[in-house]
Amino acid sequence: MYGEIIAIGDELVSGKTVNTTSSFAARRLFDTGYSVRRIVVIGDDIPLIVECLNKSVQRCRFLIITGGLGPTADDITNEAVSRAFELPLIENQQILRKISDCEKRHGLSYDETFKRKLSMLPEGAELLNPDGHAAGYMLMHGGIPLFFLPGVPHQLENHVVEQVIPRLREILGKGRSVMQKTFKIFGLSEIEVNARLSRIESRYSGLSIGYYPNFPEVHVTVTLKGQSSDETRSACLDACSAIRNALGLYVIAEDDDTLEAVTGRLLVEKHAMVSVAESCTGGLLGQRLTDVSGSSAWFDRGITTYTNRAKEELLNVPHEFIEKYGAVSSQVAESMAEGVKKLSRTAYALSITGIAGPTGGSVEKPVGTVYIALSTPERTEAKRFFFPGGRDKVRATAAETALDWLRRHLTDGSFVPGYRPA
Amino acid sequence: MYGEIIAIGDELVSGKTVNTTSSFAARRLFDTGYSVRRIVVIGDDIPLIVECLNKSVQRCRFLIITGGLGPTADDITNEAVSRAFELPLIENQQILRKISDCEKRHGLSYDETFKRKLSMLPEGAELLNPDGHAAGYMLMHGGIPLFFLPGVPHQLENHVVEQVIPRLREILGKGRSVMQKTFKIFGLSEIEVNARLSRIESRYSGLSIGYYPNFPEVHVTVTLKGQSSDETRSACLDACSAIRNALGLYVIAEDDDTLEAVTGRLLVEKHAMVSVAESCTGGLLGQRLTDVSGSSAWFDRGITTYTNRAKEELLNVPHEFIEKYGAVSSQVAESMAEGVKKLSRTAYALSITGIAGPTGGSVEKPVGTVYIALSTPERTEAKRFFFPGGRDKVRATAAETALDWLRRHLTDGSFVPGYRPA
Repeated sequence: MYGEIIAIGDELVSGKTVNTTSSFAARRLFDTGYSVRRIVVIGDDIPLIVECLNKSVQRCRFLIITGGLGPTADDITNEAVSRAFELPLIENQQILRKISDCEKRHGLSYDETFKRKLSMLPEGAELLNPDGHAAGYMLMHGGIPLFFLPGVPHQLENHVVEQVIPRLREILGKGRSVMQKTFKIFGLSEIEVNARLSRIESRYSGLSIGYYPNFPEVHVTVTLKGQSSDETRSACLDACSAIRNALGLYVIAEDDDTLEAVTGRLLVEKHAMVSVAESCTGGLLGQRLTDVSGSSAWFDRGITTYTNRAKEELLNVPHEFIEKYGAVSSQVAESMAEGVKKLSRTAYALSITGIAGPTGGSVEKPVGTVYIALSTPERTEAKRFFFPGGRDKVRATAAETALDWLRRHLTDGSFVPGYRPA
Repeated sequence: MYGEIIAIGDELVSGKTVNTTSSFAARRLFDTGYSVRRIVVIGDDIPLIVECLNKSVQRCRFLIITGGLGPTADDITNEAVSRAFELPLIENQQILRKISDCEKRHGLSYDETFKRKLSMLPEGAELLNPDGHAAGYMLMHGGIPLFFLPGVPHQLENHVVEQVIPRLREILGKGRSVMQKTFKIFGLSEIEVNARLSRIESRYSGLSIGYYPNFPEVHVTVTLKGQSSDETRSACLDACSAIRNALGLYVIAEDDDTLEAVTGRLLVEKHAMVSVAESCTGGLLGQRLTDVSGSSAWFDRGITTYTNRAKEELLNVPHEFIEKYGAVSSQVAESMAEGVKKLSRTAYALSITGIAGPTGGSVEKPVGTVYIALSTPERTEAKRFFFPGGRDKVRATAAETALDWLRRHLTDGSFVPGYRPA
């Protein structure tokens, strides 16, 4: 059931644009039991596209081609298909209708060459979604389905989910039974995770465990392939509970769940809210919490005090603390957390103050030094951390550590963060 | 001067991980005049790696292979190289030394099979950075340099910049003269940008303009290739000023510059600071402003009031406004901006309140309705916007529009945002 993807675009092969669309397509296919064996990325170059099309159709069961369907001069996929398979380009009435609908809706009038470019498809092309906006199409060649999809991410994503996968099911039948599960881990390195899980892998036939650093987390993917879906399912559930035991609280979330969503649910269970006070992260912690839809049920407010004056005025951090210990200190971190907690009257508060760099470091407090404080109904405690990497990594690890600390505290009541304090 | 990249990893071909590292390498190479013609992504599959290696070395001038050099069982690049080119694997003393240094530094003791796996390299391999942590290497094959690089992003990035490009210069000589420039545009669609620039492209030989939607921005890349660097440079400067004229204030930043950094510099020029009050963006606006190192010179504070109570308490939003007009209204947006400006005594303030979804919409105020207010030393004004797309897109466009509005105001004094109000 192997397929291939050919991604076309100068912007992809010159590295200007990251090829997220191929990853999306490959992942969705994999999850439904159709695997991609090879992804080939090439530029807007007709002879090269012709060569790649001809090679791929000889070795795979299905082929997805992305990009180059647009109206601009660099969109040449249709012409390449016409040459590769010796198919004339024919005006597609459905596309012309889409364009004229679009013109009416937006009060625009498109150029004739634009219209012509968009509407000339290789003979035999069948529009995947005649009623939608984008004009992806399918072409059968020697019994192999070829899917030509727009390169724009959300259009491609709709086409893959709503058109490509259902059609593959019709043409090729159901894929092999595959169960897949992702564990998201924070506080252990890839090697440490591997060491904890290496024995589990050999216990199950058809099980493979993949380790993917996904800064600042490590993601572990468990894939189980088998003949029957019942057998695959039960082996997968078994392996997953062994993995959960081996990793304990280091597992911050599973599958599409996130650290912030898990933390939010734990707060809801306790009928509690959280507020945050940030300095070097500049709002990142609040932004992550509010990534979760419905977070207003458990997130009250975030205060970003980037200057010392703002810390004193808004959070009541004593001027002497800043003078004596510096803005990056456990005293100021604790005072920030208590300040925002008092203002918001939430049960919990988090604060972050640190030196994200590249400037501002000193011998005692080098770039990467961050104090995080957790304030609970019982007490407030700050810990000092050292996060390596540049500005973005320091900020990302600091926000993750703060969230993770709250999650752990809400889970077992302890004051131990997942990332080791410095 | 064409090269190829082979990216190895089940996580890449199954779509679990997005292939950002190939994009990084391709872009850096392109910018220095070495182009990548093809990127091939395959899984951890020895026969397939062998096949791809053998094909690529026959058609390119240099080859970069990423991934599969690590210590875990799925790291099989070295074995594939050994088979493809019939080279024995030989223990590399420099790697063994790196490992033992690492063990000492972290007080660890690695497994013998780990060590052996990491240290067995194909005969002729030359470590790229014997003093560094990662173990990328170069191998000459039939006069073609093959660079084997670790798949971990920051290790790969260091290797490309510090090792691969300088060595390519030594081996292949300087690349063709290439000038490249990126314009970042906000407030016009890709088609609108294209319509404004289409005539410029034909005026210069060797000029190509690429259009890359980079939500919520459109990025335009201008590439000029020529024989001499002087001639290329002057034609590129010329084309760029024509583009600047055609797009005017829609250009928010150029090259690696960003909207937030540009806005910060404009504030510094005016000796002014900004503060922000956020609701649906939850801290995203503050986070973007503080992405800029040194932003404490012009960013004072950010207040995220996610609940109505927080809006009233912290920002002095009148309770009647929320009752009468709703939390998502021009009155509340203006009151939020004025509230944070008063607290912080900054010259400028921005506020955002809206319905990011997926819940909370109504007939009058559907999901995507956002009010943004800009407060200047002279006056405060809120505008209503409608941003399409899901939660993430609504939030991203809202933060971008607020920043862009301030940038435009600081540039020409007008109160006109780049994104058209609803």
